[in-house]
Order: sequence, then structure tokens, then C-alpha cells
Amino acid sequence: MHRSIQFVGSYSGFFSNSLKLHSFISISALSRTPHSYQQFRASSIRSESNPDVTSPSSSSSASKSPNFKSTDSGRKINFCQLCGGPTKHEIPDDEGKERAICTLCGKISYENPKMVVGCLIEQDNKILLCKRKIQPSYGLWTLPAGYMELGESASEGAIRETWEEARAKVKVISPFAQLDIPLIGHTYLIFLAKLMTPHFSPGPESLECRLFALDDIPYESLSFSSMLITLKLYIEDIKVGKPKFHYGLINKRPGTGPSEIHAYTFDYHLRT
Amino acid sequence: MHRSIQFVGSYSGFFSNSLKLHSFISISALSRTPHSYQQFRASSIRSESNPDVTSPSSSSSASKSPNFKSTDSGRKINFCQLCGGPTKHEIPDDEGKERAICTLCGKISYENPKMVVGCLIEQDNKILLCKRKIQPSYGLWTLPAGYMELGESASEGAIRETWEEARAKVKVISPFAQLDIPLIGHTYLIFLAKLMTPHFSPGPESLECRLFALDDIPYESLSFSSMLITLKLYIEDIKVGKPKFHYGLINKRPGTGPSEIHAYTFDYHLRT
Repeated sequence: MHRSIQFVGSYSGFFSNSLKLHSFISISALSRTPHSYQQFRASSIRSESNPDVTSPSSSSSASKSPNFKSTDSGRKINFCQLCGGPTKHEIPDDEGKERAICTLCGKISYENPKMVVGCLIEQDNKILLCKRKIQPSYGLWTLPAGYMELGESASEGAIRETWEEARAKVKVISPFAQLDIPLIGHTYLIFLAKLMTPHFSPGPESLECRLFALDDIPYESLSFSSMLITLKLYIEDIKVGKPKFHYGLINKRPGTGPSEIHAYTFDYHLRT
Repeated sequence: MHRSIQFVGSYSGFFSNSLKLHSFISISALSRTPHSYQQFRASSIRSESNPDVTSPSSSSSASKSPNFKSTDSGRKINFCQLCGGPTKHEIPDDEGKERAICTLCGKISYENPKMVVGCLIEQDNKILLCKRKIQPSYGLWTLPAGYMELGESASEGAIRETWEEARAKVKVISPFAQLDIPLIGHTYLIFLAKLMTPHFSPGPESLECRLFALDDIPYESLSFSSMLITLKLYIEDIKVGKPKFHYGLINKRPGTGPSEIHAYTFDYHLRT
């Protein structure tokens, strides 16, 4: 009996699975524009990069310029989780990508992206934002969101994160956006939601929670590019009608930090 | 510098990351119906389960009844991938869930769900399906799909998997469905796509690839519940207009195998 193992670079494995670990990974600066087979083939060399991330300061003080460097995350799987044997890094038979393979039991450790799930809570033409009490992007505003856990659905995870960060009881209304950030191995899944009661207050990871009128959203104090894009898409939709579902790629500029929220291009935007 | 580690039960870590590893996990049979905060709180005990999976026969012959059992996947993280130290299983400070923590370096190994990305390829009112040459569900029909890799977007992954399984060059048109299967820690992200050339042929993981007219889809020979639901949703949409975007939860009946494709309920179906 064997299992696949996923390994994703992150800020720190010591603390939490709740977007404290929001990771920023520097990979090659090759253009990320494929959206068809031919484009994919042309850029497939990029997908062979091995993204990684350095750890920022563990201080809880605000840090807008964490350090990043490009390394090889695969080489951080030094041992097998199952038997403790040392790993070798080779391309297995019938696969096109290098993997960490246990030299004792043969188990392959796979690396896969993570889902970040969250809620865009609409209430009386206002949006609920949380000011982060954790790194990265300490002191900056975010939608309640965090890593999806095993055993839950994306909508359940979004509801759970909203409770943890904003002590708000919400009902999911519809999916709103899927935003891939390949550079850091994250996919954001954002749902539109409504408060079930008017009550909310900061959870342990938030300094403050507040409903913002659409004209008052603090765009220059948002925590992540994903939040900026999500809010922009929502407001564009509201201006011309009702929210759609959006898919797109956030291509962060390699070497930039999470709070450098304008350092991206938004590509392959598809709406339904 | 520390990293989060994801660990997901799967059929076999020896072979591939390309849905050969489609895992089926038995957890408690508690009703999976939360879609609001109160429902979430009521069933949160379920999310503390530790799903796992046994390995099916490694035979390449068709097997419709693989064995499954409920165990504790977290307890399979016996060693730290970074330093090789033995792990303990405890609830870290500020977290509500048991994690595997390295007793030497303190690194926490996180477990997160995996994304499966694929294409629903429409061509001349027909759909491209692949007959699986791998377990599970050997000999049964599937949309081309597989695990999303680090460093790629969901749409790039869907294009890659389509090439690998059907040697088809496709262009992604729009997102079509997000289907969570919490029981096995999978989220399917399916895109509508078009062939860029009329050519396709079986890749190494397929016995055959074929365009099926909508009336001829082999519903009783499909590989997974996710494929059955995706195709049903598509055909329902086509009958009344054009495809929408669908979100929903596939709640597999605990203890059932991947090819028991009718052993599910489809809950919290949201359309946009």
C-alpha cells in the first residue's frame, strides 16, 4: 500500500495551514502564456522548473518585503514519509517529470498545487474584509480565505475560514472565481456568500473585520494580488449587472513578494 | 526555512501522478450536507476523520471491486520529509486539527486535497472519451483528466492531460465544472475545449479514444462518478441552451469503489 505525497513550498511549516503559509516562489521568468496545446508545448520547459520559497521573518511585525529566492523544492523531499528512507530524484518510468523516489521502499512523493478557498461576502452593498494579524501581509486587508483541508469541500472550507478569520456565519450563494497562481502553486476558489447573522468580529488571525462600501475598498492596503483581482472583477460585474464566474491566471512577477499586489499580469480570463 | 507537506491517500505512489492514482477513501458515514456555517458546525466532527485508502490489485486487468478500508492517513506520515526525523501526531497550538509534527526539527506536515483537471472536448456535437488502460477503472471510459502539477495552471494541466491520454491538441474555451469529492480529497476542474486539429489517438494510458455522439455516450461503462455527472450536466445544458458553470459536491457512498459510478449523491449544485 503506497500513497502519493504532495509537497508545496510555503512560508513556514511550523505554524498553520490557514494562509499563514501563503507562499511565494520564484521560478524562471519565462512567459506564462500557454492556453492551447501548441502554446503549452512551446512553454513546457517552464513547467519543469522546481519552484521553491525562502522563509520570511518569523516576526509578527509587518513586513512588506520578504525575501524570496529560486531553489529546488523537489530536493527538499530528502526522506520518505512512510519508511524514513533517503530519497533519490529521478524521472520514473512512464513519467516526464523528476520525482523524489524512496531508495528503500520505492514510494514516489508527488508534488501538487494547493487550493485556497474563501468568501466574498456581500451585505447591503458592502464587502467584508479582514485585516491580517499574521504574516505575510500583516496589517493588510483580505477576504477571509485559507487552505482547503482534507475531508471538506471547497464551499465548506470557505465557510470554515470565514468563521475562523471573521467569526461570521455565512451561507454560500455561488462560485465566483477560480484564480490560478502557478508561480506559487496555489489555486484560489472564491465563493459569493451572505451573512446569516449580522454579527462578525476578528478571529485570532485578524486584527479587525469591517464591511466596506464598494467605493471605500482599501485597494492600496490589500494583502494579495488575488484579493485585488477578485474585488476588481466583482465590482466590474456589479456595475454592468450581476456577478459572473471567472477563471484566470495570475502571473506574479518572479521575485516579487505577496504584498507587492500590483506585480502581476492577469491572463486567460474566461467568464461564464 | 520550512515547508508544508501535503499527503493524500492514493492507489499507488509507485506509478504516476496522472489519475492512475485515483484514490477512494472510506471515512465515517456521517451525512455530508453542510453548506452554511450552522450546517458546517453541526458536521464538523466529520472533518476530523482521517481518510485513507488501501491499495487495489496491481493487476492491469479490469477490476470493478477494489477493496477499501478506513484507516488514518495522518498516521502514514511517519517521518519528516525534510530531516528524516520521526513524527508525532498532535494538534499544534492555534490549530484545530491533528497534524504530523517532526520530533526533531518541528516541521508540520500538512495534508490537503488534490485538483484533478480535465477537458470536455466538444466536436461536431460529439464528445471525446478515452478508454482507460490503467487501474482503477481499467477498460472504462473517461474524459481526459489527471492530477494538476506544480508550476502549471488548471487549464494548462487539462491541456497536458488531454495530450497525454488522447494525443489531442486542444484549446480551452471555458470553465465548465468544479466538482468536489471530499471523501477522497479530490476536486475536479473540468474545462470545455475544442480540438485544434482533427487528429487524436490513444496515449500510453488509453486503450482507445473515440468521439461519441451525445445519444451514444456509454453511460454504463464510464470510469468515475465525476465523469457521469459532468456528462449529464453538459447534456442537460445543451438541451436547454448553452453550457453554464457548475459547482457541486459528489458525496460518494463510503466503502464503494471508483467504478461504482452510481454510488453517490450530488449535493449543493450551484450554477452560474
